[in-house]
Amino acid sequence: MEEVEHHFEYKTPSILGKHQKEVDHSLSAAISLNNPDMHTMLQYHLGLGDEHGSHTVSNQGKGLRSSLCIFACEAVGGMPNQALPAAAAIELVHNFTLIHDDIQDGDIERRHRQTLWAIWGMPQALQAGNAMRSLADLYIQQLSHHQVAPDVVALCSNLLTSAYLETVEGQYLDLDFEGRTDISTSNYLDMISRKTGALIRCSMQLGSLTGNGDSKTVQALTKCGQYLGAVFQIRDDYLGMWGDEEETGKAVGNDLRRKKNSLPLVYALEQAGSIEKKQLQYIYAKEQVGDADVTSTLALLVNLGTPEYLERLAHYHAAHALEALDGIELVPGAKQEFKELVEFLMTRQR
Amino acid sequence: MEEVEHHFEYKTPSILGKHQKEVDHSLSAAISLNNPDMHTMLQYHLGLGDEHGSHTVSNQGKGLRSSLCIFACEAVGGMPNQALPAAAAIELVHNFTLIHDDIQDGDIERRHRQTLWAIWGMPQALQAGNAMRSLADLYIQQLSHHQVAPDVVALCSNLLTSAYLETVEGQYLDLDFEGRTDISTSNYLDMISRKTGALIRCSMQLGSLTGNGDSKTVQALTKCGQYLGAVFQIRDDYLGMWGDEEETGKAVGNDLRRKKNSLPLVYALEQAGSIEKKQLQYIYAKEQVGDADVTSTLALLVNLGTPEYLERLAHYHAAHALEALDGIELVPGAKQEFKELVEFLMTRQR
Repeated sequence: MEEVEHHFEYKTPSILGKHQKEVDHSLSAAISLNNPDMHTMLQYHLGLGDEHGSHTVSNQGKGLRSSLCIFACEAVGGMPNQALPAAAAIELVHNFTLIHDDIQDGDIERRHRQTLWAIWGMPQALQAGNAMRSLADLYIQQLSHHQVAPDVVALCSNLLTSAYLETVEGQYLDLDFEGRTDISTSNYLDMISRKTGALIRCSMQLGSLTGNGDSKTVQALTKCGQYLGAVFQIRDDYLGMWGDEEETGKAVGNDLRRKKNSLPLVYALEQAGSIEKKQLQYIYAKEQVGDADVTSTLALLVNLGTPEYLERLAHYHAAHALEALDGIELVPGAKQEFKELVEFLMTRQR
Repeated sequence: MEEVEHHFEYKTPSILGKHQKEVDHSLSAAISLNNPDMHTMLQYHLGLGDEHGSHTVSNQGKGLRSSLCIFACEAVGGMPNQALPAAAAIELVHNFTLIHDDIQDGDIERRHRQTLWAIWGMPQALQAGNAMRSLADLYIQQLSHHQVAPDVVALCSNLLTSAYLETVEGQYLDLDFEGRTDISTSNYLDMISRKTGALIRCSMQLGSLTGNGDSKTVQALTKCGQYLGAVFQIRDDYLGMWGDEEETGKAVGNDLRRKKNSLPLVYALEQAGSIEKKQLQYIYAKEQVGDADVTSTLALLVNLGTPEYLERLAHYHAAHALEALDGIELVPGAKQEFKELVEFLMTRQR
């Protein structure tokens, strides 16, 4: 019985990567560029090649956003092919944000590989990111060759730009929160709903639009995507604190060591009495956060009931994500598939 | 007689800034953002406010691209108002590239003011730039409320993205050229036709499209814009070497001091005999380029006939820009106005 449960928790839900091959194919088509060096960089960042331009498929991301987009398209009765340009465009926009994030944070590693700027230099990576973003904007126009009406294509393009703009506003807020210990959980949740939520929401919105969903269904899936984004990020923040190094590639307490504002800490600060607050502020004021600091802080977070809070919150958003689908009709099996995805996102180990 | 000529050379041509007020108004409308801090940054960068968010109009750019866009619209018989959203969007894209350029080059000053990253920090400026770009993409859609047909709006949006992508490819090439002394003038001209030329060309293309020009006229104005971009950049490169500090705000030999690849140097290296080549390479290999180096190198460039070459080349492109307008009909006075602009761009002191 235990083994079955274990197996269940780790099984990748069918929605994720179901159309990986087609998405990869679209991504390759989307990033064709005159400049071969820049092309190599984009290919490398997407995990579609190595740093010399060879087509060795290496460590790719989860493809969550493209998977959600195609799922939503199929769920409303569309063919996966109809959503492909939107799915690829969203994946490109997401990956573009990662390129700039790595520059911004000075991170030299992502997904167990060197980051773009670490290999090619900051100016080159900056421009490669900008190129990826432009290619996304151009590629989404391909929807018009996939049985999507011109006005829907224009709408999808605008929604993607708007969702990205929300992402930027979220990233900016996140920078503003840095080093502050007075952020409320509600401020923080608002920030992540922009920074991470907007593109995840947009994935389901564009998918259902390209699949020709009626407006009530599109609205429901959009709302569902908004809640799902929160589920995703809450687990991300959990893993940033308590994730297993073997799974995540990052040491326990990683966000603490990097002094990143994340939900566990924001919650703990909100809950802490004056002594505990001082203890937390002291850690964040330190030049270097060591192993002993990590151990004591994690213990403090546990004492304040932080892991339970995160679990409750994830459940709350998961329930709302599922509830959003009540009263709309999707193709048979879609709701069950989606439920599996939600469960996976709540329990994933990396 | 001399004074008249002098006066002529410095008189701002009527095309430039003719609709500055409307453009500024559009820019202000375009950059409305939820986040007040980010809004202040964008406003500041556009010269529409100071770093505290006050509406003091300070040192703005030339507005060349928005001016060209509106000019082309009027030249084909359109109303200036029709082109406004495109003109503002191009200006935003151009200004976005400047924000990222300043980060990339580590420049702390632009137009006699501190750069965005120098005031607010690199990550914040990076994101503010990305926001500006997104706002441009959204704002160009406003064309549909300015008597521009949906398919033309979609086309304009795509052309702007494509032109920007060309700009990025040019910037990337420019990075690739850095420190190399084997670049031919033809390589260099190809690079600047992307890096600077694409957006200038696009300005005239979008202007004539929004003004409802027929396809032959749009093509002619687009071609004209491409040549004009070269005229602009050739003069820029001239001023980067021989510009007067009082006019440009930069010391004589500025590009040399910064060891920037620019047309004078690329030409000189191409023309130089082996001894002169070594001399030039030696300067560029030095840690610091001093006043004596500048003096001797400028003398060498003059000996190699570099200023004359730049003048010839500018004339060549100017002639082609004007020739492109032969055989198409523009509103009365437009060709003469354009001729004045070309002459201004060839002789401007800053």
